[in-house]
Amino acid sequence: MTQEFFSALPDHLIERPVLLLEEKVARRNIRTMAEKARRNGVLFRPHFKTHRSAHIAGWFRDEGIRSITVSSLRMAAYFAENGWDDITVAFPVNLRETALINELAGRISLSLIASSPVVIRALDRSLSERAGLFVEIDTSYGRSGVRWDHSSRLEEVIRTLHGCRHLHFRGLLSHTGDTYAATSREEILMLHRKAVEKLKKLKKRFADDFEDCLISLGDTPSFSLLQDIEGIDEMRPGNFVFYDMMQSRLGACSPEEIAVAVACPVVEVHPDEHKTVIYGGAVHLSKESLPAGSGSSCFGRIIDPHAPGKVREDTFVYALSQEHGLVTLPPGVESDIRPGDLLYIYPVHSCLTANLYDAYLTSDGKWIESMRSI
Amino acid sequence: MTQEFFSALPDHLIERPVLLLEEKVARRNIRTMAEKARRNGVLFRPHFKTHRSAHIAGWFRDEGIRSITVSSLRMAAYFAENGWDDITVAFPVNLRETALINELAGRISLSLIASSPVVIRALDRSLSERAGLFVEIDTSYGRSGVRWDHSSRLEEVIRTLHGCRHLHFRGLLSHTGDTYAATSREEILMLHRKAVEKLKKLKKRFADDFEDCLISLGDTPSFSLLQDIEGIDEMRPGNFVFYDMMQSRLGACSPEEIAVAVACPVVEVHPDEHKTVIYGGAVHLSKESLPAGSGSSCFGRIIDPHAPGKVREDTFVYALSQEHGLVTLPPGVESDIRPGDLLYIYPVHSCLTANLYDAYLTSDGKWIESMRSI
Repeated sequence: MTQEFFSALPDHLIERPVLLLEEKVARRNIRTMAEKARRNGVLFRPHFKTHRSAHIAGWFRDEGIRSITVSSLRMAAYFAENGWDDITVAFPVNLRETALINELAGRISLSLIASSPVVIRALDRSLSERAGLFVEIDTSYGRSGVRWDHSSRLEEVIRTLHGCRHLHFRGLLSHTGDTYAATSREEILMLHRKAVEKLKKLKKRFADDFEDCLISLGDTPSFSLLQDIEGIDEMRPGNFVFYDMMQSRLGACSPEEIAVAVACPVVEVHPDEHKTVIYGGAVHLSKESLPAGSGSSCFGRIIDPHAPGKVREDTFVYALSQEHGLVTLPPGVESDIRPGDLLYIYPVHSCLTANLYDAYLTSDGKWIESMRSI
Repeated sequence: MTQEFFSALPDHLIERPVLLLEEKVARRNIRTMAEKARRNGVLFRPHFKTHRSAHIAGWFRDEGIRSITVSSLRMAAYFAENGWDDITVAFPVNLRETALINELAGRISLSLIASSPVVIRALDRSLSERAGLFVEIDTSYGRSGVRWDHSSRLEEVIRTLHGCRHLHFRGLLSHTGDTYAATSREEILMLHRKAVEKLKKLKKRFADDFEDCLISLGDTPSFSLLQDIEGIDEMRPGNFVFYDMMQSRLGACSPEEIAVAVACPVVEVHPDEHKTVIYGGAVHLSKESLPAGSGSSCFGRIIDPHAPGKVREDTFVYALSQEHGLVTLPPGVESDIRPGDLLYIYPVHSCLTANLYDAYLTSDGKWIESMRSI
C-alpha cells in the first residue's frame, strides 16, 4: 500500500477494525498478471475466492478477463448473477449440490472438477444440462484429486468419461499448493516445473482418447515468480490480487504490492511488558500464522506509519484471542503508540482475512461490498 | 450431542457445510451453570460472545438470567435492541467508540472495563451519560488489564477514578484465560484459586476508597470444574453454552455435552492415501487447532455415526485450506464413508467456528439467526 492511500484515508471515521483496500495497488497486481498471461499466450482464468466481490471483478473485466475460477457453487451463482458466464468451480464436485449445478449449467458455461469415477458417474446421471469437467490431478500437493501416477484410477476415469452423456471432458487441472511450503524462489519454480512435466505426460495419455485436453494450473507463488510460462493452457492464481505476508515471505511479492490491511484501534499500551493490546483478534485477522522464530507465531505485520507500504521490522502481532490482538512493543517506541491510535496490519493470509468481512473500505471513504464464502 | 438429534435431523436437506445446534444440550449446559451460580450465591453474568443470538439468549432468560457480558459495543447494541438492559462489555474501552458508548449508556445499565489512567480520564471526559467501570486486572494470563502487582499503576487508577464525573467504579474484573493452557484439572483449579487470592487482596485496597468493589471472574474451564465457588461476586463464563473439543481436552466437558457440530459433505475418499476430503475448510471451521501428536494438528473431531455424541477415536481433521478439509481415513473403514455422505464435526473452538456462520440449524430444520462479531 502507498503513502498516498494513508494520506487520503479518512481515518478519523474508523471506529472499529475495518478492512482497507487500495484500488490502485490491486489494479496494478491484476494488470501485471493479465499482461504476463497475454505475453505467454496462456488463458488467464483468475480465482475470485480471494476478493469475492462483483465490484472488484469489474477491475478484472477492465483488463479483458472474461473467464474466472471460484471455489463454491454459491460463489459461482453470485458471479453469474453479476454477468460472468464462463466459470470453473475449482473445488471437487459435491454430490449434494446437483440441483444448483443443473441450474447454473443451464445459464452459463460451467466447468466442474472431479477425480473419482464414482463421483463422475453419479454426477453425470443427475445432470440434465451440459457441463464441462476437468479431471483434478494431484501432482504432489496431497490435498484433493487423483494422484498423477495412479494409472489404474486414471484409466477408470477415462472409461467413465466415455460413458458420460452430459459431462464433456475439458482437461487436467491441478493446484500446486505445495509451493506455499517452499523455502526459496528456486524451490517454488522447481515445484512448478515438475508439476507441468507430470501434467504434460498425462495430457499425452488423455489425448489418445479425447480431442482436446487443456492443462489448467493454479497457485499465486509460481505465477508471480515465473516470467516465461510453458506447457500449460490456462492459469488460475487468485491471491495475487491482494497478496499478503505469506506471499511476501515466499518472495512472490514485496510488502508494497499488498493491497489490503486491517485498521485496528490501540486499546492498551504496556511499556513495562513490551506489548500493545489492539482491538483486532481472530475474528478480524483469522488465526492463520507464520513462524516468527523461537517457537513464536506471527499473525500479522504492522505497516510503518513513517514509510507506508513497508512493514515495521521491530514489531508484529504475536497472539490473538477472539477480539484481542497482542503486538510486541519494542523499547523506545512507546511514545509512538497511544490508546485510540490506529495500527494498520498486513494480514498473513489475505483470503481468510478478507472472508471475515462483508465490505472493504477505500481511501475515499467508500465501501466495496463482497459476498462471504460459506 | 445426542442420538435423538441425529435421528431427527433432516440431513437430506443439507447441501453445504452448516452449523448444527442441539437445543436440548445447550439448555442443559445453561441450566447446570445457572444452578451452580445460584447454589453458590454468585451473580451469573454469562458471556454471550459464543452464541451471539437473541434467540439463544432467550434460553438464558428462561433460567432467570438478566445480566450479561459481551465482547463488543456492537454486540451490546444488538442485545440491547433485543431487550437486555444490564450489559458489561468485557473488552478494554476503545476510545474511538465513545459515541456508541454514550448512546448505549443512555439506554441501559452499561459497564465497561479499562485499566489505564489515560484511557479512564479520556473516557470520562467524553461521556455525557453515567456508566459503570470495572478495572481489569491481569492476574497472570498476560493478555489485557493492569498487572495485579503493579501497585503504582493501581494507585494512579484509584486517584483517576476519584476524579471521574460519569464513570462509577464497580469492581475488579479478570479473565483467567491461562486455564486454557493447563494440562490437568488440578492445574485449572489451582490457577483459579491463585487468581481469586490476588483479587481478594486487591479488593481490600480498593475497599479503602470505594464503598462497593465486586470481583468478576471469567473463563469456562474453571467454572465447569468448580463445585464450590468462593471469594468472588460474579462469574462470566461463555463457551460452556456450546463447549468444544478444547474444553473436552481440558476435562471441562464430555463430548456429549458439546452442543454444536459442523455438517460437512464428503467429496473424495482416498483409501490408498488414508484420507477423506470434505467440503469444510478454514472458512467453515476456523484455523484453531489442538496438538495431535507427532507434530500434527487437529482441526476438529468426527462424531461417531454409530454412537452420536461420542467422537471417533480413529480419525480427525488434520489439515484445512480455504474450503477443503482433510480427514484421516484409517484402514478398514473406507466402506463406511462415501462421496455425498455427511461427516459431523465437533469444532476445536466453538466461539470462532460459530462466528463464521449467520445461523444455526436445529434438528427440526429451523434456522436460529445470530449476529456476527466483527
